[in-house]
Amino acid sequence: MADQDERTPVALTPGHDEHLAAAIESAGGVLVALSDARVLVWAGGVDDFPRELPDSIEWVALKLAGIEEFMSAGLIDDRRIWTNASGFYAENVAEHALALLLAGLRQIPAAVRSRWDKDAIDTSIRSLHGSTVAIVGAGGIARSLIPRLSACGAEVIAVNRSGRPVDGARETLPADRVGEVWSRCDHVVVAAPSTAQTRHLIDASVLAALPDHAWIVNVARGSLIDQRALLAAVRDGQIAGAAIDVTDPEPPAADDPIWDEPRIIVTPHVANPSSGLTRTLAPWIAENLRRFRAGRPLLSTITPGSTY
Amino acid sequence: MADQDERTPVALTPGHDEHLAAAIESAGGVLVALSDARVLVWAGGVDDFPRELPDSIEWVALKLAGIEEFMSAGLIDDRRIWTNASGFYAENVAEHALALLLAGLRQIPAAVRSRWDKDAIDTSIRSLHGSTVAIVGAGGIARSLIPRLSACGAEVIAVNRSGRPVDGARETLPADRVGEVWSRCDHVVVAAPSTAQTRHLIDASVLAALPDHAWIVNVARGSLIDQRALLAAVRDGQIAGAAIDVTDPEPPAADDPIWDEPRIIVTPHVANPSSGLTRTLAPWIAENLRRFRAGRPLLSTITPGSTY
Repeated sequence: MADQDERTPVALTPGHDEHLAAAIESAGGVLVALSDARVLVWAGGVDDFPRELPDSIEWVALKLAGIEEFMSAGLIDDRRIWTNASGFYAENVAEHALALLLAGLRQIPAAVRSRWDKDAIDTSIRSLHGSTVAIVGAGGIARSLIPRLSACGAEVIAVNRSGRPVDGARETLPADRVGEVWSRCDHVVVAAPSTAQTRHLIDASVLAALPDHAWIVNVARGSLIDQRALLAAVRDGQIAGAAIDVTDPEPPAADDPIWDEPRIIVTPHVANPSSGLTRTLAPWIAENLRRFRAGRPLLSTITPGSTY
Repeated sequence: MADQDERTPVALTPGHDEHLAAAIESAGGVLVALSDARVLVWAGGVDDFPRELPDSIEWVALKLAGIEEFMSAGLIDDRRIWTNASGFYAENVAEHALALLLAGLRQIPAAVRSRWDKDAIDTSIRSLHGSTVAIVGAGGIARSLIPRLSACGAEVIAVNRSGRPVDGARETLPADRVGEVWSRCDHVVVAAPSTAQTRHLIDASVLAALPDHAWIVNVARGSLIDQRALLAAVRDGQIAGAAIDVTDPEPPAADDPIWDEPRIIVTPHVANPSSGLTRTLAPWIAENLRRFRAGRPLLSTITPGSTY
């Protein structure tokens, strides 16, 4: 634990970011080179990440929310603490999830495209009010999303790994009972991390089990949905549509048929916009640095092997 | 006041509607011809409305929320009670207002149109979280909208006729101080009734006073916005965009330039969809019939000459 008066040496790289630098300095850190640092705040992606870290680095703070590339590259070791940023962007991602769900239910892109085809739009609109929304992978995003859905008059069925009750959800099911959810909800929000276990969590059998008025929202990773099966289900009317911020592959090819399916709404992985991202992250880095200096547990630590 | 055991004769016309008929019967009514009725539940518009009502009609329940056509046709007399349905559809309209605001802020139609132009979308997105939303004409829709906005992390400045504080709003201003609002809010939701006083409430001077990141939502009536000034302000970048469920004229002409302005999102007057409308209305008609039979004040009575 650092002496209260001694500043903690922190490396902030690659590049310089004014928001993160100010946060580090406000929380008792001092910016130094990597070789002199006890903390690395890594503002980049996986490709440039140093393959050998100095032993002096006790904590690595990643700017990213999704860390599967760091995982599969074997970079997350057990010789220090690692944190990511998944919880810190939850408000932003929850807001985008709600925007996507409402855009689907209230037929906003269809209305824009059809230029006042009132009869078609009027009869296609559904209310979020009074509906039941399943949130699969109920972590930080769900904690931000549930109050929004509740205020809109919707009820939530949460699915998480343990089944431990999630605040504000009507009920919470463990992941091994996710199969019970599909026929009992109106709509689904996918918010689980991308792991081997969650790949194609939404597949043809799930799509067949959902009600035909269901909208699916994905703000997690494209791999969680079997996108070919999704396209077929929407075309066949098995579900009403999908509003997705992530795709598989990402971005979709220019000739991917999902571009021509009006009931699939695609936004370009912007639930947590890169512009303004470090401004959002900065107070959390400061909070974690204060915790680090006080020897208290850090927020958003990475637990290798976690599913959802 | 009716004897508890005696059923109240109600005329339900034009046409027959199963939801309204069931509601009337469940609340102590019996369906009769207009000439035998004490209550008229009018399920139509202004054109077919009888120009002479039997003197026996003590209460007319209109299915519509906006009743300016009934007003200007001089049909709303003072010989009986009149109710409209504005308060009953508030949840639905508030949900659509939120959907429109989020669709604008989160760039949903722009993202759909641009097919993964990530750089452009990412830098155009703004968060509702942390913003201040002015609701001009803060009545029933605002009461439903404010909890939704609060759950999204936004604060509300309400404007109503009296300035009497609105629950959940950070502050409430009377209509004669509406000019103070524009520079102090991020976004505007127009929810006031259409009257001579509210025509072009949003005009060129208001648009110039709003911040350049502002989105304007209109779920009231098209006449409240000077649509030509709106188009110019959006094109000039005076505001970020508008998401409107109502237009002036309605619908816009096929060659109206608003169709070609991507930052104006238009839905075809579907905030309160006609399909399913009588199902939404039915419990309120039942409630009002119970009140009528008990001699208690009715909900959503029409007060001629009210503005906002």
